[in-house]
Order: sequence, then C-alpha cells, then structure tokens
Amino acid sequence: MQTLADIGEDALIRRLVAGLKLDSSVIAGPGDDCAVVLPPARNEHLLLKTDSVVEGVHFTAETPPRLIGRKAMARVISDFAAMAATPRHALITLIAPPTTTVKRVIEVYAGLRKMAELHGVNIVGGETSRGDQLIITVSMTGIAPAKGWLSRNKARAGDTLWVTGQLGGSIRGKHLRFDPRLAEAHWLAKHLPVTAMMDLSDGLSKDLPRMAASCGLGYQLAFEKVPKSRGCSLTQALGDGEDYELLFALSPHALADGLSLWKQTFPKLKLTCIGQLVADPRQADLTSGGWEHFR
Amino acid sequence: MQTLADIGEDALIRRLVAGLKLDSSVIAGPGDDCAVVLPPARNEHLLLKTDSVVEGVHFTAETPPRLIGRKAMARVISDFAAMAATPRHALITLIAPPTTTVKRVIEVYAGLRKMAELHGVNIVGGETSRGDQLIITVSMTGIAPAKGWLSRNKARAGDTLWVTGQLGGSIRGKHLRFDPRLAEAHWLAKHLPVTAMMDLSDGLSKDLPRMAASCGLGYQLAFEKVPKSRGCSLTQALGDGEDYELLFALSPHALADGLSLWKQTFPKLKLTCIGQLVADPRQADLTSGGWEHFR
Repeated sequence: MQTLADIGEDALIRRLVAGLKLDSSVIAGPGDDCAVVLPPARNEHLLLKTDSVVEGVHFTAETPPRLIGRKAMARVISDFAAMAATPRHALITLIAPPTTTVKRVIEVYAGLRKMAELHGVNIVGGETSRGDQLIITVSMTGIAPAKGWLSRNKARAGDTLWVTGQLGGSIRGKHLRFDPRLAEAHWLAKHLPVTAMMDLSDGLSKDLPRMAASCGLGYQLAFEKVPKSRGCSLTQALGDGEDYELLFALSPHALADGLSLWKQTFPKLKLTCIGQLVADPRQADLTSGGWEHFR
Repeated sequence: MQTLADIGEDALIRRLVAGLKLDSSVIAGPGDDCAVVLPPARNEHLLLKTDSVVEGVHFTAETPPRLIGRKAMARVISDFAAMAATPRHALITLIAPPTTTVKRVIEVYAGLRKMAELHGVNIVGGETSRGDQLIITVSMTGIAPAKGWLSRNKARAGDTLWVTGQLGGSIRGKHLRFDPRLAEAHWLAKHLPVTAMMDLSDGLSKDLPRMAASCGLGYQLAFEKVPKSRGCSLTQALGDGEDYELLFALSPHALADGLSLWKQTFPKLKLTCIGQLVADPRQADLTSGGWEHFR
C-alpha cells in the first residue's frame, strides 16, 4: 500500500485539502504561509483552543482512522461548547511516520472533515511533519458574544452543580463517537442561569476540583447522585475521563421552568444535580482519580 | 532530576504559565477551556498558522532547550512575516515523554516566551499530552490590514525574484538562532511593489517552484546570482532549507529609490535579485532538492 514516503508532502497535502468546503468567511485557505479569514463582528470576542490526539494515548493502531479524525475534531469543538461559543476555523497538524499509509491519513482527514462540516467549522490550513507516532493536533478559533460567553471561574458559593448525560466507561466506545454538546451548551447559556461551565475530559474527579479551584470555592459532591453509565461503578464514573459531557454551575433561583423546558428540548439527555459549590475552598472531597497525562 | 511524571500535568502547567506577559487584548488567558481575546479591528483580517518542531527532525536531544523553544516560536512568526502581517496570540501544544525533566520543559518555554515577547505575541493557552518524543506545536493568530497583506500567488510574468540574506548551511546554527524577518517584511510591503512573498523554510529549490506554481507561472532562476552562505555550495544554498529568509517578487518598475532606501534601513541584510517569473508554467529549472518531510 502507498505510504507517505512514496508520495511526499506536497502531493499528500493536495489530496488532503481537495474539495474542502469553505464558507464566505475564508479569504485564503490552505496553500499560503498563513490562512486569512474575516474577523469576528465588533460585539464578539475571538476564542482560541488547541488539542492533540496521540497514538497509544488517545487511540490505538487498531482504531478506525475515521474515528481518530472524528475524535480529534470533536474534542476541540467540545471546548467551544464549554464556553457557549461557536467554533469557526481550524488548522490541522499531522505528525506521522513516513511508513504511514496514505489511505490511513486520508481516512483520518475524512473523519476530521465530516465532524468539522457538521458544526460549521472551516478547515483553513495546517502543517505536516514526520514523527515516531501518529499525532493529530487541531487548533481552532471560535466566536462568542462579548457579553455572552461562559467561563469556568464565575460561580458563587451556593450555586448548584450539574452534569449532562452519564459518566464513566467512555473507553468502551464513547470516547471515539461522542457528539460535542454544542447545541446543548448554547441552550443552557440562553435559558438557565449558568454561572460556570466546562467540559468533562479528564474525569469528574479531576475536572470538578479544577472548576471549584478556579472559582476560589470548595464543593460538596453528592456521590450517590453522580449519573453512572450502564455497568459502571462510582469509581469509573468519577475517574475514567473522556466523558465530554458538560459540568456546570447554576445560580439557585428560577430553575424549575428552565429544567422542564430542557426535558422537552433534549428528551434523551438527562441533567443531574450532583452537589453544590461552597465558600470554603478546603471543602473538597475528591483527592484522587481522573486522567493524568504524565503518569 | 524531577520529571513530568513526578509533578503531573496541573503542576507543570502552573509553572509554565506563571508570570506570562499578556497585553490588554487578552480577556482570558490560560486556565479555561478556550482563551478569549479581543477581535481584530474592522478593517483588518485575521490570519492563522500552526507549525511543529519534532525531536529528531527539527532539533536533537543535544539542542539547548531554550533554542528549541526559540525556534518553535520563530518559525511561526516567520510565516506571519511572509504575509506582511502582525502576529498576536499563540497557543502552545507540548507532547513529551513522562521521563522528560521538568527543567528541560521549563527552558523550552523560556525560549518560546522570550521570542514571543520580542515580537508582541501573547501566549494565551495550550495543551499537554504524553508521547514518545518531544514535540512543540505553536498555533498563532495575527492581523493584517484587509487591503495590506501579501499572498504568494499574485505575482505576474515579468516580475523579478528576490531573496533576503544568504542561503544554505542553516544546520550549522542559523536554524536555531534566526531572527524572523518581520520588520523587513513590513518595510518591503510598505516601500516596494511586492507582488508575492513567502518565507524560505524548505529550501529555494522547493519553495520557489511552489510560489511560481501558485501564481500559475514559470520562472528563470539565475543560478550564479543565488546568494550563498559562507562556505556553501550552490546545491546547499538551493537545497539545505531552514533559511527563514524572504523570497518575494517585485513588479519591474519604480525600484531604484526603494532599493537604495533599503540599504540605508537594513545595511546588514542584502537583497539579491535571483531571476524572474515567466508566463510559461513549464519553464521551471528546479526539479529536485529541498526538504521533504516524509522521505
């Protein structure tokens, strides 16, 4: 089978970018030193995020290549969801051994492109280099109303803590096939008094303490309420990671109508209250578990 | 010596971002799901670029870590120079084996940060993951006047071809210590009738055919005029790559005053006319050489 070494960089790139769908915001796509795009509107902020998937860490040699690309793109879109923002333009960095088949790379890009198109993301450029293992890095810009984006650090003591969906067991397949909660996040920001939000990528036991710490708060977690994926223990729900669900804090007033409207709008995705934020930052029950990159 | 595995991701990131210098365009820097920055002005375009340096390809285990960071940042700034644009905000992706010493990574970041500060670039976030070899990816945004940026594809037949500086032999040290030609590129765009520009990263023998092809043109290269670094053969000047000099095309009128003003402004950096673009795209003398990533 044809490898990257057989066809070389320029021919590879021509194949990867052929027929890319670009909207009218793209002035110059792949092929120049930089991509050129229209700026956000005056009342919007520009958001930036980068993320990588690494062979042997986020996927294996056996992972279907389309799902590798799908995951690489969806992980970053999930970060824009976490801020109630809209992803817009992406750059793709491909690191691969020269022995990688062209077919594998083309399929990785098919997965990247399909997920990008689904969410209105333009792939406007990228970079390739050889390396010892396959790594896909997606760098993305997005936009949000200057007064309408959500950080993870603005919650107050007494705000309740919520998650979408079920946690744990992602390795059984969800980590490759999850849908970024973009529509759900925009809905929440519009209809509920969300005071902080993030996406759960390293596991609740790692991400909840991060959110509380960045608010300067502690938390009470109602362990028995943590929604567990089918067949998962509490330990798995807290520590497996790669849930790509939303964790958010709600101001404790005017909730009932919003929650009932949520059920009508997203009948298949449960919202669960799992505890609350408290004033004392030392009140923190989760001291271990979750994904640690360097251990 | 302390390794990444010893301190873990969160502690590492706290050390890497401590004391980052951020200007007033940064609304939210490292620590949230995305960075948030002010958008470009209404009459500006947004430019995007990503680039990686890989251990064993762009540097070695023996390269001083500050120079690894310096190079990673300078390569991307060089791409903004190529478009006469101004780099603004950067995200850093760090892939590293868990056995990497914390000291090495801190020094890589010191190199990244110093080069960024020198050119007014804000480091606003990033990502870390483990991997088999050290890889630094820098993703950057920049701005340029909507009517003032330079592409590589707008030159016409008869335009003359120019390079800054000398070519070849970069591996002897320049590839780690080059200064991106940002000020020079802005000066050229302002004072001379530049019709196309790019930076020379893969070698003239690879990059000149790329520029000509994206203009739909051929070229005549005056091989004897190619400026060679001291001790370098023509083959090296054409093929070594990593020169990070500017290659540009000039409309063939009104040059004399501009060229003499260049000599006064940048007395240490020579401009050399190395040929011209021609109408027939089949006229192309460079058929081999230059850096090929996958061979």
